Amino acid sequence: MDECIPVMNTGLRGVDVASSKICNVLGKEGKLIYRGFLIEDLARHATFEEVCFLLLYERLPKKQELADFQESLKQKRRVPENIFSFLKTLPPDMSPMDVLQMATPLLIQTDKTIGQPGIENTLYSAENLIAGIAIITAAWDRIRNKKEVISPDNTLSHAANFLYMLTGDIPDDETSHFFDTSLVLHAEHSFNASTFTARQVASTRAHIYAAISAAIGSLSGSLHGGANVKVMKMLMEIGSAEKIDAYINNVLNSGGLIMGLGHAVYQTDDPRAIILAPMSKRMGQIAQQPLWYELSRELEQKGKAAFKAKKQREIYSNVDFYSASLFYAMGIVTDLFSPVFAVSRVSGWAAHVIEEQFAMAAPKPSLYRPGAAYVGDYCGPDECVFTDMDDR
Amino acid sequence: MDECIPVMNTGLRGVDVASSKICNVLGKEGKLIYRGFLIEDLARHATFEEVCFLLLYERLPKKQELADFQESLKQKRRVPENIFSFLKTLPPDMSPMDVLQMATPLLIQTDKTIGQPGIENTLYSAENLIAGIAIITAAWDRIRNKKEVISPDNTLSHAANFLYMLTGDIPDDETSHFFDTSLVLHAEHSFNASTFTARQVASTRAHIYAAISAAIGSLSGSLHGGANVKVMKMLMEIGSAEKIDAYINNVLNSGGLIMGLGHAVYQTDDPRAIILAPMSKRMGQIAQQPLWYELSRELEQKGKAAFKAKKQREIYSNVDFYSASLFYAMGIVTDLFSPVFAVSRVSGWAAHVIEEQFAMAAPKPSLYRPGAAYVGDYCGPDECVFTDMDDR
Repeated sequence: MDECIPVMNTGLRGVDVASSKICNVLGKEGKLIYRGFLIEDLARHATFEEVCFLLLYERLPKKQELADFQESLKQKRRVPENIFSFLKTLPPDMSPMDVLQMATPLLIQTDKTIGQPGIENTLYSAENLIAGIAIITAAWDRIRNKKEVISPDNTLSHAANFLYMLTGDIPDDETSHFFDTSLVLHAEHSFNASTFTARQVASTRAHIYAAISAAIGSLSGSLHGGANVKVMKMLMEIGSAEKIDAYINNVLNSGGLIMGLGHAVYQTDDPRAIILAPMSKRMGQIAQQPLWYELSRELEQKGKAAFKAKKQREIYSNVDFYSASLFYAMGIVTDLFSPVFAVSRVSGWAAHVIEEQFAMAAPKPSLYRPGAAYVGDYCGPDECVFTDMDDR
Repeated sequence: MDECIPVMNTGLRGVDVASSKICNVLGKEGKLIYRGFLIEDLARHATFEEVCFLLLYERLPKKQELADFQESLKQKRRVPENIFSFLKTLPPDMSPMDVLQMATPLLIQTDKTIGQPGIENTLYSAENLIAGIAIITAAWDRIRNKKEVISPDNTLSHAANFLYMLTGDIPDDETSHFFDTSLVLHAEHSFNASTFTARQVASTRAHIYAAISAAIGSLSGSLHGGANVKVMKMLMEIGSAEKIDAYINNVLNSGGLIMGLGHAVYQTDDPRAIILAPMSKRMGQIAQQPLWYELSRELEQKGKAAFKAKKQREIYSNVDFYSASLFYAMGIVTDLFSPVFAVSRVSGWAAHVIEEQFAMAAPKPSLYRPGAAYVGDYCGPDECVFTDMDDR
């Protein structure tokens, strides 16, 4: 396959490795589509549970189907007690992402379908993961802060229950709605690194818990899930509006980037950023800390103008730019930003695992097994001669 | 990159995604090379620890370097007590691969280098993983069988200590040597699925524990790590020499495969199989169960002849074909075959993580982020219209 040599060392950028019916990202138009539906419509009209159903079952649920699905997720909020007991023995400074990656395979304990073939069993496991990962994320934050783990409240939605189990307070409707919408916005984004990891692990016919745990590991990397954390750190570093010009100048002169402005795929504003911005503004008002939204907005406007003027480059806000200030205003600490991403994205990962294992276009089960160009030059063109220890 | 369309839905088979100095597999010649050295030379002359050094440090160690490396690995045999306590709370039927994937990030607890940049810190972590994964594998098998966890014996090599911690008995020299050689043979094999997973997770700049845990998840899939388990099940199903002809006929008539004969890369005998066969034979004698080797040998000879005669196809034994009977004669139960593979392969995975993070040919850090062809056809060429719940 000589015509494919440009693949090498490009991180597979621009290379279509599979066909997929889950998600379409139209970078030029700034469109994000889950299973045929524009993200704007889903964010406006659908709850996270409804989007989970859409991603997993390939269509919008009817009223009773959604009610059943919500109930099914609630029943899966029972996370094994031994997980909580064990989390209490871990060092409190252990990264929430490491805890989440570790704890994900433990959710198998409440899954009687494991080892049984069939898409319906994997769908059951997917629901178990969507419910369980939210609970472990909230519980670990309580445990590391020496607080009691809160029991789930089954009168609450997935989003509201997460905030309740995290903070101990039932969130007001607006906060709950904003968090729900954030989960909708982060649920899916085609073959990004963590999704590709999930599919790759699933392609070996490992079960969905193994695949999702691996995806969490992938998301924990600073080049992937850590982007909105970097945005928040940048906002804190800037600290006040009068320092924005100097910050932008410094970035321009050092050839650096403004975190959260620019995206590998979108060549216009990320549609999710457009939805997140007003939520960040309003959440700042509710939380009585308008500063972070205001800094973000001014940084965006001035940054865009400066890059256009001095570098003749258009830059656009991405999903991380306003989710940082939004999550922060909700009282979510920065090292939970990536876990919260996982709380949402587990739905997309699960859809991809199911597609990989049950609906791939490939004629028979096949795993991802690329090649590599061997460039070892240890002993020239020949193999090395093994020398005795004393002769080295 | 239109010329790369054939990549799609082929599992990246034959596509070089990166350059690498770690391993070369020459399928036609039946050569396997680690860092310039033929596997035959390494199997004959080097211990597993020596091969780990070679993989991690890119050259054979001098005498004192090897002594220091062995000592360093021994010092890392201290696995946190809370892991063992927790394993005792898990259901005994939990898969050892799930336990291993889950427990791997927990080894972070004894790693003070986590979060610090620099190749030397990742090398420290790699040693911690090589030591720790062996111990968790042995400990889980003890715990699930309601036996006491054995403390490591630092007079023993990595291979002998593993068998000691697994069985409670110090192995004889020959058994210990065979197991050590098996670890050498399984240590590395270029970009197979689990190694690609490790590199992919590492490419996001996740730490090595996240990457190795993910790789274990990948290896747990039945298309990847489960092959020698299937060989052993096949041998048990055949059960006696007089049933071999009927078994082969049945396979030929049903268009099936003989497990362990045939490999995606080698077009001749897998060089590892050639080394494993006599070890399996001798181990069968030591264990006084010569049957499994004898069945394997006869199945190989008759199977090769039958495929040539009736299908005009050459088939060759692969690494799984004789490792099954070898491990079984050592008293390793079949569901530990894949964990034992991980005990060895962690060395190769670690070398690949280090290469991905510190020595990639790419000009700057970059993660694997392929594309996918969207083939969703939910609402024809247009986006779907979001309908109210009551109208669905």
